Amino acid sequence: MRTSQYLLSTLKETPSDAEVISHQLMLRAGMIRKLASGLYNWLPTGLRVLKKIENIVREEMNNAGAVEVSMPVVQPAELWQESGRWEQYGPELCRLTDRHNRPFVLGPTHEEVITHLVRYEVSSYKQLPLNLYQIQTKFRDEVRPRFGIMRGREFLMKDAYSFHIDKASLVETYGKMHAAYCAAFSRMGLDFRPVQADTGSIGGTGSHEFQVLADSGEDLIAFSTGSDYAANIEMAEALAPAGERPAPTAALTQVATPDVHTIDEVCAFLKVDAKQVAKTLLVLGEADEAGEQPVIALVLRGDHELNEVKAEKQPGVAKPLTFANDAQIQAAAGCDAGSIGPKGLSCRVIVDRSAAHLADFVCGANLNGHHLTGANWDRDIQGYEVADLRNVVEGDPSPCGQGTLLLKRGIEVGHIFQLGTKYSEAMKATVLNEEGKATIMEMGCYGIGVSRLVAAAIEQNNDAAGIIWPDAIAPFEVAIIPMNMHKSHRVAELAERYYAELKAAGVDVLFDDRKERPGVMFADMELIGIPHAIVIGERGIDNGVVEYKSRRDGSKLEVAIDAIVAELVARLGR
Amino acid sequence: MRTSQYLLSTLKETPSDAEVISHQLMLRAGMIRKLASGLYNWLPTGLRVLKKIENIVREEMNNAGAVEVSMPVVQPAELWQESGRWEQYGPELCRLTDRHNRPFVLGPTHEEVITHLVRYEVSSYKQLPLNLYQIQTKFRDEVRPRFGIMRGREFLMKDAYSFHIDKASLVETYGKMHAAYCAAFSRMGLDFRPVQADTGSIGGTGSHEFQVLADSGEDLIAFSTGSDYAANIEMAEALAPAGERPAPTAALTQVATPDVHTIDEVCAFLKVDAKQVAKTLLVLGEADEAGEQPVIALVLRGDHELNEVKAEKQPGVAKPLTFANDAQIQAAAGCDAGSIGPKGLSCRVIVDRSAAHLADFVCGANLNGHHLTGANWDRDIQGYEVADLRNVVEGDPSPCGQGTLLLKRGIEVGHIFQLGTKYSEAMKATVLNEEGKATIMEMGCYGIGVSRLVAAAIEQNNDAAGIIWPDAIAPFEVAIIPMNMHKSHRVAELAERYYAELKAAGVDVLFDDRKERPGVMFADMELIGIPHAIVIGERGIDNGVVEYKSRRDGSKLEVAIDAIVAELVARLGR
Repeated sequence: MRTSQYLLSTLKETPSDAEVISHQLMLRAGMIRKLASGLYNWLPTGLRVLKKIENIVREEMNNAGAVEVSMPVVQPAELWQESGRWEQYGPELCRLTDRHNRPFVLGPTHEEVITHLVRYEVSSYKQLPLNLYQIQTKFRDEVRPRFGIMRGREFLMKDAYSFHIDKASLVETYGKMHAAYCAAFSRMGLDFRPVQADTGSIGGTGSHEFQVLADSGEDLIAFSTGSDYAANIEMAEALAPAGERPAPTAALTQVATPDVHTIDEVCAFLKVDAKQVAKTLLVLGEADEAGEQPVIALVLRGDHELNEVKAEKQPGVAKPLTFANDAQIQAAAGCDAGSIGPKGLSCRVIVDRSAAHLADFVCGANLNGHHLTGANWDRDIQGYEVADLRNVVEGDPSPCGQGTLLLKRGIEVGHIFQLGTKYSEAMKATVLNEEGKATIMEMGCYGIGVSRLVAAAIEQNNDAAGIIWPDAIAPFEVAIIPMNMHKSHRVAELAERYYAELKAAGVDVLFDDRKERPGVMFADMELIGIPHAIVIGERGIDNGVVEYKSRRDGSKLEVAIDAIVAELVARLGR
Repeated sequence: MRTSQYLLSTLKETPSDAEVISHQLMLRAGMIRKLASGLYNWLPTGLRVLKKIENIVREEMNNAGAVEVSMPVVQPAELWQESGRWEQYGPELCRLTDRHNRPFVLGPTHEEVITHLVRYEVSSYKQLPLNLYQIQTKFRDEVRPRFGIMRGREFLMKDAYSFHIDKASLVETYGKMHAAYCAAFSRMGLDFRPVQADTGSIGGTGSHEFQVLADSGEDLIAFSTGSDYAANIEMAEALAPAGERPAPTAALTQVATPDVHTIDEVCAFLKVDAKQVAKTLLVLGEADEAGEQPVIALVLRGDHELNEVKAEKQPGVAKPLTFANDAQIQAAAGCDAGSIGPKGLSCRVIVDRSAAHLADFVCGANLNGHHLTGANWDRDIQGYEVADLRNVVEGDPSPCGQGTLLLKRGIEVGHIFQLGTKYSEAMKATVLNEEGKATIMEMGCYGIGVSRLVAAAIEQNNDAAGIIWPDAIAPFEVAIIPMNMHKSHRVAELAERYYAELKAAGVDVLFDDRKERPGVMFADMELIGIPHAIVIGERGIDNGVVEYKSRRDGSKLEVAIDAIVAELVARLGR
């Protein structure tokens, strides 16, 4: 490609409304332009990267035995009514009506459509296992689209759905998808980790996220220092502290704590460490037959954070997790939120494993402006349950039994899931098994955020000058930068020759044939992040050389005029 | 691909709701499945064809210097309000609102979005010409989706938009697109014609449709027997008959024609040829300042058909063309529709060139149950205009001046258009010209119905057994059909060997490894339309041969076991 025939659209200034580096660089490098909130046009440079990622994903899916199909963006509402998600899905599901006033949705995902398709196309266990995928436009009406295409409303996704006669077959295909994802992200040159993930409302244990590590990531991942263990913090288990709980030594005492509401204020006022304080939160339980929702107390150590996913999973806790309001707190504890404590509450009390290991601790007295000191479980407070309720913190022992936990941030770019029979049962997707009996199929689903990968790769690969693409997903592999070619016949001729030879060798080349100062050309090629460059100048030609420049390490190399094309082809592994 | 790991989904029965052969065969060959009216899932076999067509289009667009981008399916309504199409576009434009109640549309086309993009990205004539394209999902809420994906609601389209400093540059790119379209459709192995097309409400003369010839086509195309001239019948000019109009010989006579309403009835009752009858239609004119729409009479020869596109183009005729209702006819002509005639009408009268060449003709008397015979222009009827109002018929002289016209049916698969400044003017898309003066850009637009091409190719390439794909767009190029391989070790081994060798040679192979009778396998491979097959049997192996079979001509050839792969590679031009 010649820049003179291309839409380069690079920007010198960093757009003020872009918060994360990938969003800033995608705008500056002329990769995307905003059309409306969460809706982006892909300019040529961005689309080239997107297509390369798409092709790697396609190849690895094909290698793993998945078969490509394509389903519509617009889906009839009936299928969503049949699966139950018409009611369950919130306003992220964009609903519309056609000219005949029939209801449709813009597909945020395709479980319903694929289950509908497969229930009619597959009738026998002999046709299984079957793994169908598509790479297709999705729409989710995010309440707050942000970070450019990282969390857009319209995006490109690879979604695969597998169908099985039994769980063992599902587990086998799940393993193949796990391997295919690792292969695809490795080929893209990304630093990523498969991590155990929460399975949400569906239950079961089979789910992994694929996280690209980056400080700007929205997800927090716990790693073991002693093994391969990695899990989303939503999922990472916090073990009970080692050893026996210390015996009580202090007497239970009620102390006045005027104007003390937060843990920090309690610690400052009573001069204790937050680790010696128990904080109590009230949430709502599931409604009883009369529709009444009881209150449930959750108790954590003062320095720990509630893990809402874990809390929501406790039997009897209302889903989604709902905190008690002021009136409900007053009714249950007789005080304001800042003074609740586990002693004397008549509701259910669930204590986090670490909080349950405390002795002689401080907690609210269920009386405004008062706390208890020297509190002890069993001696002072009885009738509580113990569970894992908190987020792990760095230094916690790893639940795998080896090493301790480290925390890193990640960007979720893939998610694989053993769905089981959630959709196949609701939509009656059965096949005849070997005995000729109708059997509900087991299903798996496997997603990759194709457009999000573009941003994730940039978060991992950039410097002050711009993007640094891994070869496999670079918009162009080689930049030809001829200095003052519009004045030098020799420079122009050599540039044209390299352009022709590299194209013939199947290399993606951007030939910067603009009438621009060398500085402008260098800045643009570095901003766009082209991994390899040939710089052609009069002086070099005099010496029989051109300059090779690596974007990643900035190294420069003088190469003989006739050797540079072979050098590049070798570097690119052609 | 092995059929055992594939979703073949062939059907024995022809689905009853499929009218055209391509729709029937796409369902039977397991290419598509209906999800809802006008919405289709693409099964693996269909998607493979679609992707091959998409890739040919992409390559030819790139070869012609167009640059690929991608724009969202969901577009903000403001842009459509700015261009004026928010009001102009009918219910085919699917409108929706997001969770914040902001209005959007599902893009049926992207003129607004691309013009919006380019007005911000391009500021100087130096960046022009620029030709941007995408291959992307479109949605048009057709009132009556039909013929499967031929006229679906969601479909895949290649749409390109070019931007220019002046008309000359537009004409040059238009020519390149014309050539690129010819190259693409030729590579697909299609029998097609570029034909002159109506430019609709935009005006100008620069528009061509690309029509795949097929009896099931919705469009009628006029060809010259003496030149390359080809035009959509909407556009093909009907010349005035040669020579002078004959002089009047008969006297004007009013005759009673009781119960005579249609041209056929007039001819039968008066024993005249329809060619000697003038029929008169009343349409509405443009509203005057008071909002009143005058009636305008259109007069055609009894054997000719009104061309509504030509009628609509007459100055003063209301757009869209609207026929007068019974009350308006009564008020203007004093009779019912079956008795209108040009004599004595007080409204404007426009006479088709052929009708204006009649002498001694029959026409309505503007009196119920009466006609005039021996009518003559000028002598009996004055104050009329003459224009081209009719559809051409076979045998008409070609408007190019050479030969006569033939009519054929076609399927429109592409349309190129010199848009001019319709959008760039409405949306203020300007660049600075060489003198530094803001200049509105000239635009062209160029569409290809990518998904429709799949159906069009089938309409042209099928027989009683199924589809016959041209090599370049076949879902698979070669079928390996091993007879009873589950019983014969030698057959299985040879099949596996060919499968590996052909894949290594880059050939798309479908290896039918099912436990099925040979008859079932032959029927499926022919239905799917794979152009080349290798049939492997025990008896052949005994003689050192396998059978090559051509899907297109049905020819069979015994080929030495070690020669067949080279034979196929050669046939495929690898």
